[in-house]
Amino acid sequence: MAHVSRRIFRCRGGKVISLRSAEAARLNAGINQLATITEDAPGWTRRVFSEPDRAGRELVAAMMRDAGMVVQIDAAGNVVGRLEGERPGLPAIVTGSHTDTVLGGGRFDGVVGVLGAIEAVRLIGESGVRLSHDLVVVDFFGEEANDHGLSYVGSRALTNTLTATDLARTDRSGRTLAAAIETCGGDPSAALALGWSRRDVHAYFELHVEQGPFLDEHACPIGLVTTIVGIRRFVSEVVGRTDHAGTTPMGKRHDAGLAAAEIALLVEEIATSRVVNAHPSAAGSARGSTELFDAEMVATVGDISLWPAASNVVPGRAQLVGEVRSPSAALLDRFAEALTGASIDIADRRAVQIGVEWPSVDVPTPMNAQAMHCVRAAASERGLQVMELASFAGHDAVEMAALGPAAMVFIPSVGGRSHCPEEWTELGDVAAGTDTLARALVLADGEMPVS
Amino acid sequence: MAHVSRRIFRCRGGKVISLRSAEAARLNAGINQLATITEDAPGWTRRVFSEPDRAGRELVAAMMRDAGMVVQIDAAGNVVGRLEGERPGLPAIVTGSHTDTVLGGGRFDGVVGVLGAIEAVRLIGESGVRLSHDLVVVDFFGEEANDHGLSYVGSRALTNTLTATDLARTDRSGRTLAAAIETCGGDPSAALALGWSRRDVHAYFELHVEQGPFLDEHACPIGLVTTIVGIRRFVSEVVGRTDHAGTTPMGKRHDAGLAAAEIALLVEEIATSRVVNAHPSAAGSARGSTELFDAEMVATVGDISLWPAASNVVPGRAQLVGEVRSPSAALLDRFAEALTGASIDIADRRAVQIGVEWPSVDVPTPMNAQAMHCVRAAASERGLQVMELASFAGHDAVEMAALGPAAMVFIPSVGGRSHCPEEWTELGDVAAGTDTLARALVLADGEMPVS
Repeated sequence: MAHVSRRIFRCRGGKVISLRSAEAARLNAGINQLATITEDAPGWTRRVFSEPDRAGRELVAAMMRDAGMVVQIDAAGNVVGRLEGERPGLPAIVTGSHTDTVLGGGRFDGVVGVLGAIEAVRLIGESGVRLSHDLVVVDFFGEEANDHGLSYVGSRALTNTLTATDLARTDRSGRTLAAAIETCGGDPSAALALGWSRRDVHAYFELHVEQGPFLDEHACPIGLVTTIVGIRRFVSEVVGRTDHAGTTPMGKRHDAGLAAAEIALLVEEIATSRVVNAHPSAAGSARGSTELFDAEMVATVGDISLWPAASNVVPGRAQLVGEVRSPSAALLDRFAEALTGASIDIADRRAVQIGVEWPSVDVPTPMNAQAMHCVRAAASERGLQVMELASFAGHDAVEMAALGPAAMVFIPSVGGRSHCPEEWTELGDVAAGTDTLARALVLADGEMPVS
Repeated sequence: MAHVSRRIFRCRGGKVISLRSAEAARLNAGINQLATITEDAPGWTRRVFSEPDRAGRELVAAMMRDAGMVVQIDAAGNVVGRLEGERPGLPAIVTGSHTDTVLGGGRFDGVVGVLGAIEAVRLIGESGVRLSHDLVVVDFFGEEANDHGLSYVGSRALTNTLTATDLARTDRSGRTLAAAIETCGGDPSAALALGWSRRDVHAYFELHVEQGPFLDEHACPIGLVTTIVGIRRFVSEVVGRTDHAGTTPMGKRHDAGLAAAEIALLVEEIATSRVVNAHPSAAGSARGSTELFDAEMVATVGDISLWPAASNVVPGRAQLVGEVRSPSAALLDRFAEALTGASIDIADRRAVQIGVEWPSVDVPTPMNAQAMHCVRAAASERGLQVMELASFAGHDAVEMAALGPAAMVFIPSVGGRSHCPEEWTELGDVAAGTDTLARALVLADGEMPVS
């Protein structure tokens, strides 16, 4: 409480606003309280549909009420807190993130965006500021990928992109996504009709840990996301010939496993190639230029399977599953072309057949210039350095950007670690991000045109 | 019957022996009869412990009796037929192979060595020849690798290398090898005490399909095995770091999967390297020189597994299972050194840890010069061209060579295909191999010193 401070800044039109700074102790207490709710698994685990995830969202609802919001848990499981604005009927300023986690995750991914938003609501209230627009905080349901292979379940429902086909997706036990949602008290049919429209959203802001190393490396407290990368998943199927591993000379093999190994290394080579990619060095990235970050690409082979998978049999079939991410659709196209071209070369040289399929293609999501401006100005008022960068992870903002001008505030992840128990963000950085978010919400109330 | 012929040849001491030639129709009938006994699986399948394997060995026992042999099925499941020699108390001339198959195998692997041996017994009897030594034909139990990870079960029992530890090996269902042997009417305890000694075996001959392409390519009817390759299995374990596939820049990864892919390609490179290996070209092999074949090596990566095996996670752990085969122990040593050295390089470059283990090391088994001479002379009497070559597959002869002078007669595999439904050997080649085997048995009776 000793560290409570106020900063005074000006909205458009010269209106002077005095806003308290975030209370680090209050943020810390919330993070720790949520961290006590975890599945019996390594690290911190509240997977969607689990009891700890339900309990975590109940806690969030209580925190929202305590901050003065009217809370509703919608048919898709989203916890929605609303603070009424001065002018009823205006679209809402929306902010939030998620509190579900991956298996063996950390304490910050998603959590800082929900608790930071609730803290922002408190700061606005405690500062005697009343916004014109309603301020809506959402703890989105099931942001992380689940066993049904779908992420952003809650935000998809809010943006009308959740489909009946999605609800019919089954997990390994055969349970449908609809049934899983019902076990959490949701109403799958109602979730399909839940969608908000662009008329409901004035602007969307999301505070999140970077999950990558750039802010931490450059000791920069605030990241301003330019684009959320497009993600294309690929599956390469190799058909060679199963042969005796002893009697088949090396030169007469059609080894699907070695072809898969070559593809894996080529995926890396293409992603780091100066031909396909602008390939910024770490030093280049340090300049924080949008162009440099926009030129980046990462590609991963997450799984390789060989058949028949015996040490004494030349593999006759292989499957390789991977993905490529870039903020640039043109770079993603070039990656796909290069992978196809290289696959043809490998197939010819090794006398195997290679097919590449793209089961999911998500396009890059650029953030909105006006919403970004609010973040930049908010950080500036607070004297915080800002680095512009692409988000290489997906977020609920990918969905919410369809409803209104969207921006994301990143704060540093120590060592760039995320989705693991070692995930860490310093409390001071959480507070600085919360301050930036709170000010951006106020600026958006004054500056953003009604969409 | 119209093709029955006799050839006259001389044993040491000038004794003239007139031996009928193999009856192709009789061999063909036996192969076809055995092929009707198969599991409900692709190709021809009589896996050890299966009902069809039991039925197949019963058929073999009946064929042996029909050929005039006294038949016993021993405690390890071997079908052992004996034709008494003129001089009781001498060690036996042993020949045979196996009738169990891999899943989805062919009609010739193993089978030609058992049916060819029975045909040889018939030819010797029908020709009025009586050997001094007992002639023993064995259909060895469980030659192929089984779900307990052990091959040569029957021949191991006969050579005293089957152990109580082997019998305790479990399959995926938890069933021990001992229990599996009992289901087939065997007696595991008695099998441990079954072993023959060197005093029991005068010589061992095994007729087998090559399973590789060399004889077929060079249209050579008879292969004379110089050495059965040593086989070393290896398991490479890679420990990297599990990371977010989006937010972790390419240059900051410790990708265990890419390290495994590099190892797989290095295994191929080492095995085909002119530095490690003499690397004979196909043309070089055509010369049929022992030295050239002895310089060869094959190495295979049969399986690669990545963890956690998700498209959006950088693999933190990888396991790679493979093997290397060579007739040269020195080359196998050089392969192991090169793999270890290359693994250190990869581990350094990719900042991962790599461990290489060698769970099984089988040394090369050279064939016996005197026994080989019998085969060479037998083929020569019959006017058949002989190519010397290493066996890149393991055989019961690996075990039996410990009991007495051993030699193997190879016959061509069309296209080098084996362990698959396409496995094929022309009937004329089966007959030529059988003729060579029969003559070698007679020559061994006269020429081989008592061991």
